[in-house]
Amino acid sequence: MKPTPGETLRDSAKVSPSTIRRLSKYYRVLGENIAKGTASVSSSELANALGITSAQVRKDLSLFGSFGKRGSGYPAQDLKQKIAWILGLDRSWSVAVIGAGNIGTALIGYGEFEAHGFHVRLLFDNDPAKIGKKIKSLVVKDIANAADECKNEKIEIAVLAVPREAAQAAADQVIRSGVRAILNFAPCHINVPQEVTVRQENTAMELEALSFAITHELFHKKNED
Amino acid sequence: MKPTPGETLRDSAKVSPSTIRRLSKYYRVLGENIAKGTASVSSSELANALGITSAQVRKDLSLFGSFGKRGSGYPAQDLKQKIAWILGLDRSWSVAVIGAGNIGTALIGYGEFEAHGFHVRLLFDNDPAKIGKKIKSLVVKDIANAADECKNEKIEIAVLAVPREAAQAAADQVIRSGVRAILNFAPCHINVPQEVTVRQENTAMELEALSFAITHELFHKKNED
Repeated sequence: MKPTPGETLRDSAKVSPSTIRRLSKYYRVLGENIAKGTASVSSSELANALGITSAQVRKDLSLFGSFGKRGSGYPAQDLKQKIAWILGLDRSWSVAVIGAGNIGTALIGYGEFEAHGFHVRLLFDNDPAKIGKKIKSLVVKDIANAADECKNEKIEIAVLAVPREAAQAAADQVIRSGVRAILNFAPCHINVPQEVTVRQENTAMELEALSFAITHELFHKKNED
Repeated sequence: MKPTPGETLRDSAKVSPSTIRRLSKYYRVLGENIAKGTASVSSSELANALGITSAQVRKDLSLFGSFGKRGSGYPAQDLKQKIAWILGLDRSWSVAVIGAGNIGTALIGYGEFEAHGFHVRLLFDNDPAKIGKKIKSLVVKDIANAADECKNEKIEIAVLAVPREAAQAAADQVIRSGVRAILNFAPCHINVPQEVTVRQENTAMELEALSFAITHELFHKKNED
């Protein structure tokens, strides 16, 4: 089910962040099922795994054209490949991590990234005590050279793992190099040009979802988005 | 606007994870505005800060009763307090971190947690080389004793920062102690009883949202949920 040349995503602008997150989850469930030898997966199996309705699954997948047949389920391998193509996981991505602290270090050589095609090629910091030192497989480079270094390495995604006060300057550096996508671990908004996409990691907000649940005794058994 | 005794959240079961996330964001925007001396905030100001519609803001806030007046905006301080009450941020929470690796270490004494009332009281690991050592303000304790230790410290939220293969056993330990809320950094599903709430951190999925955006040239300027 490799897309034919010129095929494009239907209504791509209408794909919500929640849908993209569910696609990532379908992709994982399909991988687990394929590993167990499953050839086809029904919308209700996907729905159960995510704790959502079958109608939601069918609606999500219909965005991208027609898959499978009613009654016989989706061919698991084909569907997984199609989702990989949709999410851009049928290729590899060059990632730079800015900030060689605990978070930055955790991301270097992280198996979950490598398995999905995200390869951390560069690691930067502004601390002279860290620059030149090796952390796991990477030598820490000087953040002052980030724009040039990222350009040379054709970095496409930058992860900001720096303190709040350093986040905007780090973002400006990598954007100058041509990076169009940033994952921001700093707990602050960063301003970027329109052509740059930002995703925000915010662990405190995840804890707030838990404190809400405890306070109001809501029990979301499933991992929600 | 402190809730009157017996007041409860309207339709709490209908509050979606996306709404909770937006409440966390409103809370932050209100904090920033109050710090600048703002006394009232309109739905369109909140909407602009989040990159959503004013109608969405009014709908979210109407879930919790009636705030503010059309035309004059919401009283910023009162609204912030009300959201704090809704999210359970008007009190402090005792947190345990399981796993004294890079992620676990990053979470100890993290200012963003402390500022919102989340206090990491205990840190566990199963590595004899780490047990007994001090990391930041905490002495690493033996994971084998997690159930008793968490019970004694009245831990309410556990953060799993352990490898995939250790996640379920760690979850079982803390649940035995009475913990009802778990934030899971391990890239795997954990099985929990119905009364336990799990939130899943998955950085690889955030990267997939970025690779989707680059692939399809969708530019979400705002930080989406």
